[in-house]
Amino acid sequence: MQQLKKTALIREAGRAFKTKGFHNTSLDEVAEALNVTKAALYYYVKGKRELLFETQMLVLEMGDAALEEGQHGKTGLEKLERTIGRFIVLMARDFISHSFVSTLDDMLPEHQDIIRKRRRAFDLRIREFVQDGINDGSIAPCEPKLAVAWLMGSINWIPNWFNPEGEYGPEAIAEVFVNFISHGLAAGSAKVRGRPRKSSSEAT
Amino acid sequence: MQQLKKTALIREAGRAFKTKGFHNTSLDEVAEALNVTKAALYYYVKGKRELLFETQMLVLEMGDAALEEGQHGKTGLEKLERTIGRFIVLMARDFISHSFVSTLDDMLPEHQDIIRKRRRAFDLRIREFVQDGINDGSIAPCEPKLAVAWLMGSINWIPNWFNPEGEYGPEAIAEVFVNFISHGLAAGSAKVRGRPRKSSSEAT
Repeated sequence: MQQLKKTALIREAGRAFKTKGFHNTSLDEVAEALNVTKAALYYYVKGKRELLFETQMLVLEMGDAALEEGQHGKTGLEKLERTIGRFIVLMARDFISHSFVSTLDDMLPEHQDIIRKRRRAFDLRIREFVQDGINDGSIAPCEPKLAVAWLMGSINWIPNWFNPEGEYGPEAIAEVFVNFISHGLAAGSAKVRGRPRKSSSEAT
Repeated sequence: MQQLKKTALIREAGRAFKTKGFHNTSLDEVAEALNVTKAALYYYVKGKRELLFETQMLVLEMGDAALEEGQHGKTGLEKLERTIGRFIVLMARDFISHSFVSTLDDMLPEHQDIIRKRRRAFDLRIREFVQDGINDGSIAPCEPKLAVAWLMGSINWIPNWFNPEGEYGPEAIAEVFVNFISHGLAAGSAKVRGRPRKSSSEAT
């Protein structure tokens, strides 16, 4: 029950941040939107920056749930399709409308580290699916690192334009995006690989 | 000469904002990084929020230059490929390393309106290229609005991971992204269209 309340709080905070901007929204206003006192709010979170951290953790948990679903795919491409589709639906249904693109700079340093590590872990799992697909022939040879940077970018950008009252619902967007991304990666046409400038350094 | 200086200033400001975060960077620090006095800085811009606006205007000008290049493509798909490729190279060479994802909320209201209008105009031009491609058979039938939201998302996200000292240079990234996007949109395989929930409202 307490967890439920906290999730509701995080969503409301995300909504307020999205509407007015993180730096233009006070914790008082979040409390007001939730119809609770600021003291009640402090029972759950230490401050605005922690709330921001919690919104990102919620998205990362959706990512993990999507990976779980993705694992049941038969080929690498199918794993990827399932993961992406599920992730978009989860985010759009539950969260994207209240989400916003935020910078890590606005979080506390210890939270920045946690988010960075979890984002990287998620990224590496998606790269594995791409590599699986290259190995099993479902995905055309490519640089998994760039492929994931490319496909996750389009997904991460959704909160910037998604309108929960708009023409396209979460399922329709997921279907269309999975289709574009899948055709972009699928084997069957010659692909140009990224040509590294040097072999020793990291792109991301 | 004055224009040149202003561009240098905008880039340096973008770099400082990216490193420390917009809200954590003072105009004093931007002046320091540029090795000028704050008074000299005020000669060019009225404040930090105006600097942010100028960084976005610089990106939009690159978008216009890319559209100019794109127009010379023979098919809709080729127009799109040229535009995207040019836009990525321009941004990555010149700006992305100093760029960052910022919210409109941090800008002055009158600037927000200008940016919104220009972004929308850019978006509509890209949608036209997609529609051209559908008409001439180079792009599989799809909803141009969603196609552009999808492909521009991956490009708009580049500043979040691009490392100017990294493994992949601007040209390599442009080549790989154009390839993925082109295969994602190209005619020759059945595409699922987005199914609108209602026909009257707008997705974006």
